[in-house]
Amino acid sequence: MLKRKNTKIYPVEGIQLSSVCSEMYSKKRYDLSLVKICDGSTISGVFTKNKAKAAPVIVSEKHIKYKNPKYLIINAGNANAGTGSDGINDIKDYCKILSDEISCNFKDILVFSTGVIGKRINVNNIKKSIPKLIEKMKEDNWDNFSKSILTTDTCPKIISEKFKIGNELVTITGVAKGSGMIMPNMATMLSFVATNMKISKKELDKILKKLTDISYNMITVDSDTSTNDSSILISSCKTKTSYEKLSAKDKKKFYSHMESIYIKLAKKIIEDAEGATKFISINVKKIKNKNYGKNIGMSIANSPLVKTALFAEDPNWGRILSAIGNSKIESRHIKKLEIYLGKYLIFKNNMLNKKYNENLAIKYLKEKNIEINIVLNNGNEEVTVWTSDLTYKYIKINAEYRS
Amino acid sequence: MLKRKNTKIYPVEGIQLSSVCSEMYSKKRYDLSLVKICDGSTISGVFTKNKAKAAPVIVSEKHIKYKNPKYLIINAGNANAGTGSDGINDIKDYCKILSDEISCNFKDILVFSTGVIGKRINVNNIKKSIPKLIEKMKEDNWDNFSKSILTTDTCPKIISEKFKIGNELVTITGVAKGSGMIMPNMATMLSFVATNMKISKKELDKILKKLTDISYNMITVDSDTSTNDSSILISSCKTKTSYEKLSAKDKKKFYSHMESIYIKLAKKIIEDAEGATKFISINVKKIKNKNYGKNIGMSIANSPLVKTALFAEDPNWGRILSAIGNSKIESRHIKKLEIYLGKYLIFKNNMLNKKYNENLAIKYLKEKNIEINIVLNNGNEEVTVWTSDLTYKYIKINAEYRS
Repeated sequence: MLKRKNTKIYPVEGIQLSSVCSEMYSKKRYDLSLVKICDGSTISGVFTKNKAKAAPVIVSEKHIKYKNPKYLIINAGNANAGTGSDGINDIKDYCKILSDEISCNFKDILVFSTGVIGKRINVNNIKKSIPKLIEKMKEDNWDNFSKSILTTDTCPKIISEKFKIGNELVTITGVAKGSGMIMPNMATMLSFVATNMKISKKELDKILKKLTDISYNMITVDSDTSTNDSSILISSCKTKTSYEKLSAKDKKKFYSHMESIYIKLAKKIIEDAEGATKFISINVKKIKNKNYGKNIGMSIANSPLVKTALFAEDPNWGRILSAIGNSKIESRHIKKLEIYLGKYLIFKNNMLNKKYNENLAIKYLKEKNIEINIVLNNGNEEVTVWTSDLTYKYIKINAEYRS
Repeated sequence: MLKRKNTKIYPVEGIQLSSVCSEMYSKKRYDLSLVKICDGSTISGVFTKNKAKAAPVIVSEKHIKYKNPKYLIINAGNANAGTGSDGINDIKDYCKILSDEISCNFKDILVFSTGVIGKRINVNNIKKSIPKLIEKMKEDNWDNFSKSILTTDTCPKIISEKFKIGNELVTITGVAKGSGMIMPNMATMLSFVATNMKISKKELDKILKKLTDISYNMITVDSDTSTNDSSILISSCKTKTSYEKLSAKDKKKFYSHMESIYIKLAKKIIEDAEGATKFISINVKKIKNKNYGKNIGMSIANSPLVKTALFAEDPNWGRILSAIGNSKIESRHIKKLEIYLGKYLIFKNNMLNKKYNENLAIKYLKEKNIEINIVLNNGNEEVTVWTSDLTYKYIKINAEYRS
């Protein structure tokens, strides 16, 4: 729904990329990419919790445990999910061509796929594209990469930041894709972020886990966790000073840039949610712990009745209350609950706020960015869940996808 | 979507009903009913597990614990939910008129409401209708009752059966309402079933609990459990022989009629699901226990992606697999999983069945009644979950409701 503004994308030293049109997604655009990671890099990954894991997830989860993967190969158009041992063999087949060409082992390669579930992947399309992929590798190719991984997405999702830590320039550049089948559980559909900041795998794992929990794990389009969710964080370790040796202040600086990248990418997925006309932030405040708040926020965010009301710009707050009642909220907390649409207090002391003016809420709902504020009044924590509305176009997209 | 065929409705001896137009739902139809239960009756009820319980649910859950309620008062058009102590006081207010007129206590009355959440109920509409309600009471009034409780429903849901047990004629007649905000958790929106079979409250409770679990708790339209779900089972205890004294065979006969009534009412709600074009039965077979199977079935039934694919008559089984992977299924059970659309085996041994012919599945999906069969191959139990597809019309109904 929102188009990307023209922002500067910084290459990450030590990370080369190339994209081609393999004609697996369409004949008109890039749909296959290769990422080369320099020696000495560290890499971290989180993957879907869907138990029907796609073949590329099974392979990448295994390979990422080995020392350091050297190549990532990513295709759009076919998820290679629900394909069993055939799916694994297909990956081995096309990776063989790749490892022969570039002299590496199968376990040095991570694979990622997104697209239709349940169809054998067209191995030949990938195989015949590999020489060109290898030939085109360069550092300044993130833009093409961001486009090559899209499916029902209407726009690429790419963020890049460059800043100084001490005397060194640190770069973080990341891309993501996702629009439907989005309620990531450990990771989004696909996300790749890279930095030149030297950092150990141990620290990288910690940062990715922490950031996933507050970014991709906080969004939902349609409550469907995909079979292919994968989120990869790479450090090319090119800075002289390592993260571990930074001052607390500089560590914080690096972390907050990283956080900004992840939250922006997660929000971009919701901005581009299938058929969405609204970007909805659900802030659950004054809660005893974040998981408790997330559960309440997700119950609202996944309610088709709340989502259709928001599409209709109808402040039907009873549906929000009902969705809260369907979460794991404790009954005794309903009494202290406050529901706000934006700044307008609607519900307090277990009933409608007498001063609530519905016309103001109706006017507010005409905006594109909507905030629903839920105040529990039983603690000091706060979480935000992001979601979209449920529209005719969501039905259209998902009733027509595949055809 | 399906219109009710003209079937015979049998009154239940000892149960009188009346319905009027209080103009709370519309000026054109009945929207308020009173049910009088004869002395000596037994009654059982189950209520929503939504923690934001509506005022009538709070009152009825309390009153049903007293000896035997004498009256049920039911309105459509306003759910009296999210109304706090005002909502309770409003109920006391209109029940006062009723208890004065008919000389009973507040605790002898059960109250039920369905409609918009979050608005004060129009007490005066009810109060002024009470004399007429009392005046019109008669046993042969179930048809009007079934119509008076509807909201977005497009047709009444009523079932009646009459059969002999020994020398006595046993009648069971029941009505239900519900179309959206349907994923009952202990009960549906509203359901009232009555029989003349003499039966203790203890046995009635047991039967209602057991039947709820295999009927209303097995359906979902949109995964939203309502604030007002209530399911009431009444016995007027008019037969000479009591259920407790029946032979095992006759007990079974009575139970199977009861079971038939509940399953038919639950299915009628799905047949009338908001905007639905399909009636979908998800049979989860060869499972180790029913809860395990229900969780898998509900994960499919609540997946917007599965529901839109079914609307599109697209055998996009990858979405079914993904939904199964998102349930609480154990990873090791995916390998032994079989997915059928009707009789067509699609997925087995963790991959597409080589003999699967997609054209036959496409043809099958053009039917109105669709069966999805999931075979787990790890036990001997079986459950069925019923649901509807997700359509443009669902969005339309729910984006326009209230306006």
